[in-house]
Amino acid sequence: MKIFHHKVSVHWGDTDPANIVFYPRYFEWFDQSARLFFDSVGLDWDKLGEKYGVVGLPIVEAKARFLAPCKFRDELVVESQITKWNEKTLEMSHAILKGGLRAVEGYEIRVWAQRREDDPNRLKAIPIPANIKAAFE
Amino acid sequence: MKIFHHKVSVHWGDTDPANIVFYPRYFEWFDQSARLFFDSVGLDWDKLGEKYGVVGLPIVEAKARFLAPCKFRDELVVESQITKWNEKTLEMSHAILKGGLRAVEGYEIRVWAQRREDDPNRLKAIPIPANIKAAFE
Amino acid sequence: MKIFHHKVSVHWGDTDPANIVFYPRYFEWFDQSARLFFDSVGLDWDKLGEKYGVVGLPIVEAKARFLAPCKFRDELVVESQITKWNEKTLEMSHAILKGGLRAVEGYEIRVWAQRREDDPNRLKAIPIPANIKAAFE
Amino acid sequence: MKIFHHKVSVHWGDTDPANIVFYPRYFEWFDQSARLFFDSVGLDWDKLGEKYGVVGLPIVEAKARFLAPCKFRDELVVESQITKWNEKTLEMSHAILKGGLRAVEGYEIRVWAQRREDDPNRLKAIPIPANIKAAFE
Repeated sequence: MKIFHHKVSVHWGDTDPANIVFYPRYFEWFDQSARLFFDSVGLDWDKLGEKYGVVGLPIVEAKARFLAPCKFRDELVVESQITKWNEKTLEMSHAILKGGLRAVEGYEIRVWAQRREDDPNRLKAIPIPANIKAAFE
Repeated sequence: MKIFHHKVSVHWGDTDPANIVFYPRYFEWFDQSARLFFDSVGLDWDKLGEKYGVVGLPIVEAKARFLAPCKFRDELVVESQITKWNEKTLEMSHAILKGGLRAVEGYEIRVWAQRREDDPNRLKAIPIPANIKAAFE
Repeated sequence: MKIFHHKVSVHWGDTDPANIVFYPRYFEWFDQSARLFFDSVGLDWDKLGEKYGVVGLPIVEAKARFLAPCKFRDELVVESQITKWNEKTLEMSHAILKGGLRAVEGYEIRVWAQRREDDPNRLKAIPIPANIKAAFE
Repeated sequence: MKIFHHKVSVHWGDTDPANIVFYPRYFEWFDQSARLFFDSVGLDWDKLGEKYGVVGLPIVEAKARFLAPCKFRDELVVESQITKWNEKTLEMSHAILKGGLRAVEGYEIRVWAQRREDDPNRLKAIPIPANIKAAFE
């Protein structure tokens, strides 16, 4: 299975008065890495709609555990991989590495979904095509 | 001319390691106040399109001067008013008040614009209707 | 047990190109509500240090499930309560309500911690005092 | 005079429902570039205090003109240079380039300041040392 690495610099505005990264930022970096990971295997995030009729990959669950604080000027790496394929959802795990050590670990669960025919404002999960899964092998 | 007041609380994640509001946040609060001001006079920001054929009110210029630092837990007021009507643009001035004193002052210039017929990806400024101006008197 | 409600407006900058709230924002609102909840019971977030010798309440884990999308202009309520007291950590659960329905639900686990005497850059979890727990009853 | 280039990717969460970068983000990128520019000439932003007795370089004014919209997936370059040295302040100009064209242009004015002896919560502007200026030549 492929592993993706996304580099992130901790900027001044990412940190709080305790000079620790404000934790929602980590989820922003998870989200960035998820998109870039898809891009890297030829599945451009913003073209999934026209190619597969889906509305991107909406998030259904996200979790993180914060193991060590990150600070202003830290240079981090988000290490991402798909750790579980369900029929209609996938679990992408992310670890944020600081000097090689795990500062944060977590995951996102995202759903392969299209608009409902009877109500385009609502979504319906559909099976993930085999070639999507294969792209990450 | 009408004056609009928008209350803002400084939260933990708005501040930097020096416990001072990270300055782009002030522009976020300017933007919030601009939208809420329009709402308050019956011009819902997201309905300008269907009513007037415009694409909202794109920003063309923004400026701020930072007079005094704001900190975590400060309760602020954004005081907004339209200080200049040009044919196709407006200038909305904002002051951020902390305990009645001006901590920040600035403005946004926004344009009344619609999509070009020959290229919908590009915008064309058009004259601001009289009733839009009248709504702020 | 006390329940706290924190009102949140979805502003233009909170939403993504699909006009859905960018999910890290929900964690920002969780964090805001956690602080305001503590404030509301007389435990000012930024005075915990001087009163109890702790470094605030660092986050150790956060999770959310996204049940329904929130959009620009939605008026939301974050409903927060402490759902578990461990010896040195607490679990605060949050639900984000949209028109009374649960759009997001999740929790934060936070630790009662002080700086280590031998290394002030590192933290040591310590037992949560009884009067802290009592303040939420 | 030195010119600094800072690369920025437009991520999903940087854009609004119109798929245009939410304008406060540009100021975040200005701020990032200012810090990295100082770093690049050997003046580490977070060590200015211990070396020169100043409290970093507080912002006193910021302005931007938005010339062309930037969108999700755009790869941008912030081009920064110091365009004016005053006795106690400096003006750093920034242009955000998209495919070589100027999408945004603006500036920040920052002050060389230390804490007042009679009131450490207030700042006093002091003359910028010659070697600071020389570092950018």
